[in-house]
Amino acid sequence: MQSESPSKNDSRYVYLFGEVEAVEKKVGGDWEEVRALLGGKGANLAEMTRLGIPVCPGFTVTTEACNAYLSATGRFPGSLWDQELAAMKELEKVTGKVFGDLDNPLLVSCRSGAKFSMPGMMDTVLNIGLNDDVVQKWVKRSGETRFVYDSYRRLVQMFGSVVLGVDDEAFEKVITEQRNSAGVTSDSQLSAEDWMKATEKFKQIVKDHTGESFPTDPYDQLKLATEAVFRSWDGKRAIDYRNAARIPHDLGTAVNIQTMVFGNMGDDCATGVAMSRNASTGEPELEGDFLINAQGEDVVAGTRQTQPISELKEQMPEVYDAFEKISQRLEKHYRNMQDMEFTVETGELWLLQTRDGKRTAQAEVRIAVDMVEEGLISKKEAVRRVQPDQVDFFLHPQLDESERKKSQLIATGLNVSPGAAVGQVAFDADTAEAWSRENSKKVIMVRPETKPDDVHGMLASQGILTSRGGRASHAALVARQFGKPAVLGVSEMEIDLEKRQMKIGERIIREGDWISLDGSSGEVLLGELPTVVPEFDNPYLLKVLEWADEIRRLEVWANADSPQDATRARSYGAQGIGLCRTEHMFFGAERLPIVQSMILSQSEEDQQNSIDCLLPLQRDDFHGLFKAMDGLPVVIRLLDPPLHEFLPAYNELVRDLADLRIKAELAKTPQQKEETASQIQLKNDILKRVESLHESNPMLGTRGVRLGILIPALTKMQVRAIFEAACLASREGFTPIPEVMIPLTCHVNELKLQQAELQQVARQVMEDEGIEIKYKFGTMIEIPRAALTADEFAEVAEFFSFGTNDLTQTVFGISRDDAEAGFLVHYLEQGILPENPFASLDPVGVGRLMEMAVEYGRKTNPDLEIGICGEHGGDPSSIALCHGLGFNYVSCSPFRVPIARLAAAHAVLDGD
Amino acid sequence: MQSESPSKNDSRYVYLFGEVEAVEKKVGGDWEEVRALLGGKGANLAEMTRLGIPVCPGFTVTTEACNAYLSATGRFPGSLWDQELAAMKELEKVTGKVFGDLDNPLLVSCRSGAKFSMPGMMDTVLNIGLNDDVVQKWVKRSGETRFVYDSYRRLVQMFGSVVLGVDDEAFEKVITEQRNSAGVTSDSQLSAEDWMKATEKFKQIVKDHTGESFPTDPYDQLKLATEAVFRSWDGKRAIDYRNAARIPHDLGTAVNIQTMVFGNMGDDCATGVAMSRNASTGEPELEGDFLINAQGEDVVAGTRQTQPISELKEQMPEVYDAFEKISQRLEKHYRNMQDMEFTVETGELWLLQTRDGKRTAQAEVRIAVDMVEEGLISKKEAVRRVQPDQVDFFLHPQLDESERKKSQLIATGLNVSPGAAVGQVAFDADTAEAWSRENSKKVIMVRPETKPDDVHGMLASQGILTSRGGRASHAALVARQFGKPAVLGVSEMEIDLEKRQMKIGERIIREGDWISLDGSSGEVLLGELPTVVPEFDNPYLLKVLEWADEIRRLEVWANADSPQDATRARSYGAQGIGLCRTEHMFFGAERLPIVQSMILSQSEEDQQNSIDCLLPLQRDDFHGLFKAMDGLPVVIRLLDPPLHEFLPAYNELVRDLADLRIKAELAKTPQQKEETASQIQLKNDILKRVESLHESNPMLGTRGVRLGILIPALTKMQVRAIFEAACLASREGFTPIPEVMIPLTCHVNELKLQQAELQQVARQVMEDEGIEIKYKFGTMIEIPRAALTADEFAEVAEFFSFGTNDLTQTVFGISRDDAEAGFLVHYLEQGILPENPFASLDPVGVGRLMEMAVEYGRKTNPDLEIGICGEHGGDPSSIALCHGLGFNYVSCSPFRVPIARLAAAHAVLDGD
Repeated sequence: MQSESPSKNDSRYVYLFGEVEAVEKKVGGDWEEVRALLGGKGANLAEMTRLGIPVCPGFTVTTEACNAYLSATGRFPGSLWDQELAAMKELEKVTGKVFGDLDNPLLVSCRSGAKFSMPGMMDTVLNIGLNDDVVQKWVKRSGETRFVYDSYRRLVQMFGSVVLGVDDEAFEKVITEQRNSAGVTSDSQLSAEDWMKATEKFKQIVKDHTGESFPTDPYDQLKLATEAVFRSWDGKRAIDYRNAARIPHDLGTAVNIQTMVFGNMGDDCATGVAMSRNASTGEPELEGDFLINAQGEDVVAGTRQTQPISELKEQMPEVYDAFEKISQRLEKHYRNMQDMEFTVETGELWLLQTRDGKRTAQAEVRIAVDMVEEGLISKKEAVRRVQPDQVDFFLHPQLDESERKKSQLIATGLNVSPGAAVGQVAFDADTAEAWSRENSKKVIMVRPETKPDDVHGMLASQGILTSRGGRASHAALVARQFGKPAVLGVSEMEIDLEKRQMKIGERIIREGDWISLDGSSGEVLLGELPTVVPEFDNPYLLKVLEWADEIRRLEVWANADSPQDATRARSYGAQGIGLCRTEHMFFGAERLPIVQSMILSQSEEDQQNSIDCLLPLQRDDFHGLFKAMDGLPVVIRLLDPPLHEFLPAYNELVRDLADLRIKAELAKTPQQKEETASQIQLKNDILKRVESLHESNPMLGTRGVRLGILIPALTKMQVRAIFEAACLASREGFTPIPEVMIPLTCHVNELKLQQAELQQVARQVMEDEGIEIKYKFGTMIEIPRAALTADEFAEVAEFFSFGTNDLTQTVFGISRDDAEAGFLVHYLEQGILPENPFASLDPVGVGRLMEMAVEYGRKTNPDLEIGICGEHGGDPSSIALCHGLGFNYVSCSPFRVPIARLAAAHAVLDGD
Repeated sequence: MQSESPSKNDSRYVYLFGEVEAVEKKVGGDWEEVRALLGGKGANLAEMTRLGIPVCPGFTVTTEACNAYLSATGRFPGSLWDQELAAMKELEKVTGKVFGDLDNPLLVSCRSGAKFSMPGMMDTVLNIGLNDDVVQKWVKRSGETRFVYDSYRRLVQMFGSVVLGVDDEAFEKVITEQRNSAGVTSDSQLSAEDWMKATEKFKQIVKDHTGESFPTDPYDQLKLATEAVFRSWDGKRAIDYRNAARIPHDLGTAVNIQTMVFGNMGDDCATGVAMSRNASTGEPELEGDFLINAQGEDVVAGTRQTQPISELKEQMPEVYDAFEKISQRLEKHYRNMQDMEFTVETGELWLLQTRDGKRTAQAEVRIAVDMVEEGLISKKEAVRRVQPDQVDFFLHPQLDESERKKSQLIATGLNVSPGAAVGQVAFDADTAEAWSRENSKKVIMVRPETKPDDVHGMLASQGILTSRGGRASHAALVARQFGKPAVLGVSEMEIDLEKRQMKIGERIIREGDWISLDGSSGEVLLGELPTVVPEFDNPYLLKVLEWADEIRRLEVWANADSPQDATRARSYGAQGIGLCRTEHMFFGAERLPIVQSMILSQSEEDQQNSIDCLLPLQRDDFHGLFKAMDGLPVVIRLLDPPLHEFLPAYNELVRDLADLRIKAELAKTPQQKEETASQIQLKNDILKRVESLHESNPMLGTRGVRLGILIPALTKMQVRAIFEAACLASREGFTPIPEVMIPLTCHVNELKLQQAELQQVARQVMEDEGIEIKYKFGTMIEIPRAALTADEFAEVAEFFSFGTNDLTQTVFGISRDDAEAGFLVHYLEQGILPENPFASLDPVGVGRLMEMAVEYGRKTNPDLEIGICGEHGGDPSSIALCHGLGFNYVSCSPFRVPIARLAAAHAVLDGD
């Protein structure tokens, strides 16, 4: 169609598939703009046409036309209809068929196609051009009564529901009745007669519904279908979808009008779908299914047994050969694995669609690497294609997908730590440990929530399931830290610790029953599901990560508290330890009593004695870490949590005391009375200390540097342990690089005071040992005031490490311990918060503050080392934010190190 | 002394008192610079000399000389000594006496004098120029042996301790021995002989201490004394003082050398101190004391009965007349009330010192107003002179000062709410209320800390005393709100509620004992002290406030929850209500049960029923407020605290349950058993709800807008009540201006959602009532994220009100409920934090954030109304910060409204 250039007041709205150059010219050559104007589907059809690939002729009505139509509230803009008519004439010319002609009728489909794929909204009307006259003549000519009437009823049904707004249920009801009266169970068993009757009934339904007969004029059909697609853009379904997928509302949809081909007209016909490579493994071979003498939906519906695409080679060797060439052609063109639909009509191959194919994580990395080797894409492109979350797959066992489908989903919770876990339910840490150790059972620990003294049970378990707790709760932190799959916050789960069972709805699960967790999806399934264990040594993955390392500018460090963790982190590519939480070392079974006696000590001397007992233990911890991280920096955070965390819980004590009082009241013998009295005395003493340590808001209380300032002996001991360990490691030939981190500072004076005291200890140790260690002192930026006055802090600190968990808490005024089980869930459900700020850094509020802090800090000290050690350090979008702010490194749990390496590379690529 | 202008390499360091013009010329006429160079004392002496007021001739060695001396580590710079010698020659010329001459000796004093008064550091050496020869000749000439040797020993003693560093104890010991051996009790009873002996012993002490004899050369004395004063600037005492008073360390001190006069040489001699106006009342009359034939220190020491200055008029009419003229002259010159020291030597009047006089708050306002009327100062100057804290005095009864001195101070705590309170100790709210109501007793409520259900007892009490709780604790907030004097956080106070007594150290105070509190100083005194009640209708104060109102640009609003509070606030000049806390209305005795039933309700319907019951009550509250604030804005904050605050405490419930379980175990009859069982059931239900509402950090939990979003019925009811009340008031002829404030927002979406829902309720009510009310919707900015994204918030909110209590908490990461009783005290004591950020806004951290918020907010909406409703709204330095940030108003408790009016004016004056 070489139409005259449109008048000034009239745009060009219609392009034949073959006119892609005209479109490119109009939009200035930008392929994104071509897609915007023609929609994704139209652009692809046009592109395939240009490549000389057999595509049924057709044309696209642009998104501009749609927008013009909608803003004119339902009138075809300018000469749009004339342009459509002209395009139809071109189709008639190319195909030799005539629209509405009785002898040689042209049939077309009408499909919507927006810039971005919107699967729920793709309205389609097939077989436009049919009416009673055309159908009768066609039957006479071909004898294919059943096929023709099946085609006709499809038109009436689709037109009725899509264009005229008839509820599709009405049509389906007719088909069901037809099946029942014919005594068959599947549509394919229905006869020509049946479809003829159904068609008549369909037309009646349309008349009943609209008050008018089904339009017999093909041009009326075409015009109404076009309009229906336009209008569908503003339908509720589409608006909801766009809101959810964050697609702008002003794009509009294109309309594709394409000549029909049929794969079900005989044994020289076929239809199929195929991937250009194996979507599961990534192997470079065609993979797909086809059916001889069938329609596209038959392949998808699974009603007939499909054949593997390899068999097409035997049955239609020339077609197969042509298809294989097209597949390669398309791959080369799109430089990606293609997902294609094709139809063979009387021996002739037509491509109906091509798009980038979906694939597994394994396939993704293999294809990416293969395509680099094939010269199809660059390394950068390969890195860009693999999504960071796909890497997760290689780090955790996964539930077997086929088995999962057959099993019973009993609940869904927060997916806080990925991977599959299968085991027997144990309701406390001791049981979990005992079963695991003594009976080598696989255990899932199930608790209302977890606490520090549950850690041994968590370590002994395959996975963790709780009814309370959020994305940054203790359970989540520990689970991610140790790579334990975990599903948390399953609030409908009622745990009865006395009966040793839990209830989910009406279902009762007893201790010892088998369950399976998918920590990636948050699903809890009944029974013992098989798992598959991918290997982290996948060579394709390692190659991609290697390329990512070449690209990224952010270093990736890990949060690790033990030599084991550190070693694992290093094997995953960690370039340092960004956070060693020393308090985790205080919870060990043999250490907790010492810590408690320190807290309960009555004199400074007793306190110092307890602290002295901790020194060699801490020194050993650090010594192991320094050896594991030989030559790499290790950031060690001094004691952070409030002291009451090391004592029994207040509520527990109150309850125990109440019980003891009852016991005392009911005691019969003087001996019983006396015993109980002394127990009460003891509990009371602990309760008093707990009360004296009680804080209304411990998160904002006496912890971090505040503790260090109140009990300097404690942090001095820790620094002594660090430097004694470093000297020891150094003497053994290792190169320890300690970075001492002072937490929770809000005023520079805190840092000045504490750092000066601790540096003196460090220098003293090194002097006594006669060894010089390379070291730094710095602070966490986790309180808004520290960020706001970062210029002052940078005068003292040699490094900043953003503690974004706490920073998010205080910037939002949201307690992470409470909110994820409470109103935050409601907020996320209602879309009040676009993202969970504890999962992904809030770029607006927290981001602004971090930007200020970096700017202020580097203004004072351009060489300031800046990193992040909050949970966000392993989140790709947070990593991108940190990259943008010019951080030196991100630090995350060992299991997220590979993800972070890739995400850091993506941040560079996205910024370029 | 008209010396040549010094050479380029030699500065001029010495100025005669009469050479003030030369100093002014040197520094460019700036009087502050004159004070910097000559010190305060030297500048005043020079100024008096210029005014022709009789000042003993002398000269000043500049601070520059001191700094040059100190930086040259102890060498006199340039020609300093020559300049001193030349100045001495001038003194000899003027006085006709000669330094060191036997017949007509010139004696001088040597005094330090820095730019800022440093009382602890003022080193003085009198009678320089005496030695054995001069003394003997003087005795011979005058026969005044006792006087002369007393003068001599004073030189040796002062020189010894100040210049030579001898411990003054050594000298005092000698005097004590002398008194003992003479068998007298006072120095004035010592004879000439005694002083001669003492002088000899003093000289021996000096020799023993220094290894050298007391210097007999007057010039040696002068030089060493000058050096001693220089060195005293770098003494520990002076450095500590400057650190505490925040005086820069590089100012240096000047040295004043002045000829001696003696008021104790006969009955034509006298000495005295006098104020130019009455320092207690401000009345315009000379007020002071004098002694005939005495020395200055005799007047101060109180060893002799002084005479009122009025009697000088009879005894020395000419001197009195001259002094009165000088007093007026000095007042006119300094435009301030003067505190003067004078000496009369043989009938001749000499002024030794003048400075601005200290005075009471009453005197301050009266003098300020009088001086405006006398044309001495401008209204602005009058306003500037009255300190905001002085206004406090007029708002609260005060302890009688004379009685306070006689009574026993038993403890000191935080001075959270000013004024005096005297009453009998009551250890709980019910007792306090009962005693106050039934027996009309005056009560001081003493508690470990207070909670909302203690409020009735607090209201019934004269004052509040607690052992825990900080400046922004519940007790502090309520006390300030209701103007109740309060002393909190007396940690050494051990309250035994069972024994109904408390222990402070070893002292036991029983319930019913009388104590007195000074909420302004934080002092707790034993017994029933008398109080004095100043009136707020002091006409001078009202005049000053009126002038302040003309100056200030900030409006002053008040935080008030009841019509009574609002009326009081209005009478104090409040221009609106900046914070009405609606939850205070929920704690009333008849309301709390309804609120509790709402919280405990099992169905939404039950919940709605409870909420409906609250509607008429809330409407009444608001109706009263609107009437009281007719025509002025009333900002009403929707429900803010977490729900658990309305339920009993966890440990209370556990304790009650234990009691009930014991009761159940001991129950004898089935009926008893059944009754107890049902009580247990009820308590258990409440306990479960309390547990389900439990949050680890309620300050960061489900409260404020979060509650409004979870239970929209609640805030909708409140808005309905507000607008129904407004319509009612409007119909009665009042002009209500409600401003609905949504608290604790952290994301603009919260505000969007809640505001839209509530605005709809407001419009509905107005439509139903057929009345249009002028109103606004806005938000508190009390979470860092709201401040950081204020641009987004300003698109929705019509006003911002900074909730600086919460904002300070989150910006610092410090829980106000805990910290003021915990580490914060340590931080303030150690100077780690320069100020308590809950008392005075942190200008660096919180201030930066507020500045951002104002900038962002006004960028979006230049007309945005911005105020502050945190406790800081009544703090003068915080008010200055708010003024600087361009706020529209500050809002504070009614009792601080007058203070804020004045502080707001000061902010303008300080900014000009």
